[in-house]
Amino acid sequence: MKPSIITISRQYGSGGRQIGTDLAELLGIPFYDKALFEEAAKTSGIHPDFFEQAEESSNRFFNNLFIGGGNLFHMSLDDRMFLAQVEAIHTIAEKGPCIIVGRGANKILAEREDVLNVFIYAEKGFRLKRIIEEYEVPAEKAESMLQITDKNRAAYVKSYTDQIFGNAENYHLCLDTSVIGIDKAVEIIADLYKTMK
Amino acid sequence: MKPSIITISRQYGSGGRQIGTDLAELLGIPFYDKALFEEAAKTSGIHPDFFEQAEESSNRFFNNLFIGGGNLFHMSLDDRMFLAQVEAIHTIAEKGPCIIVGRGANKILAEREDVLNVFIYAEKGFRLKRIIEEYEVPAEKAESMLQITDKNRAAYVKSYTDQIFGNAENYHLCLDTSVIGIDKAVEIIADLYKTMK
Repeated sequence: MKPSIITISRQYGSGGRQIGTDLAELLGIPFYDKALFEEAAKTSGIHPDFFEQAEESSNRFFNNLFIGGGNLFHMSLDDRMFLAQVEAIHTIAEKGPCIIVGRGANKILAEREDVLNVFIYAEKGFRLKRIIEEYEVPAEKAESMLQITDKNRAAYVKSYTDQIFGNAENYHLCLDTSVIGIDKAVEIIADLYKTMK
Repeated sequence: MKPSIITISRQYGSGGRQIGTDLAELLGIPFYDKALFEEAAKTSGIHPDFFEQAEESSNRFFNNLFIGGGNLFHMSLDDRMFLAQVEAIHTIAEKGPCIIVGRGANKILAEREDVLNVFIYAEKGFRLKRIIEEYEVPAEKAESMLQITDKNRAAYVKSYTDQIFGNAENYHLCLDTSVIGIDKAVEIIADLYKTMK
């Protein structure tokens, strides 16, 4: 396989997003995060800000009640956002080499043969420290924030891709950043991407 | 973490054992496979050959009926073999740097801080090809052999270590050899082991 696209699935606080931006810089290819939401907004008419929290939405119940009046298919907002993101991910993938974080992109792009799927995870202590120090979440809220975000990401992945979040078989490479380190993880992925090219 | 020991958990046919022997040669440290059974045999009085299939035993039902008459605790043969292997794995680990394949060694050595846990897996087609070509399993039996061995390894791991086989969080590094290749997997693990030293 000659990878063109790298998808990064990640536990909250594990450094997956940072690995994505570092890799993008190192490899000189675009990193899609907010730009993905803008793309999804274009086709769906849903405001880009709504997509930001879609993956870890804790108001799925509300979103599932919120049925767009003008929508022919009477889909929930969550489902409409997911479908808009699927379309956006395919559009972005067509544009050329890039890095996409989260959103079940590994499964969405499963038919392509140029996608390297990575999973980034870490021990809880390492993640809590990063959540407090890097994301500036108050210490007393960090643990519950971690649990809720993990739970919601797993539910999103299960619901929309029928995969078990964190099951190694869904990815080609899984790295525990609390043991391997973020910089070494970037190095391993970049080296693999270049070697397989 | 400065790793001294590498444990390799692996799907049947994924090349995990070969990676273990290649790594041992490259790093100049012992690879424990049959030698582990000899060690376990010493303390348990059970013949070394019995340990060979313990991890993928499909006669667990029989083994669980086979209660050693002279055993004070009336344990099944499977349980006695597991405990003998736990002791053997700890004894081996005390001897210094080494590579141990399978047997739930990642969980058994969880208290140590010098163990790098690796999981090796691969797509079914890749594994079937290896099972037929390398292990010389007849083509018509390869698929059922793969399914049974996977199932039994997962049952062994669940039963004795309470881990879900293949869940990334049980390991520090997971590599899909059907995409990454066996040689590249050896290179990544060896490089990581040396870098962390």
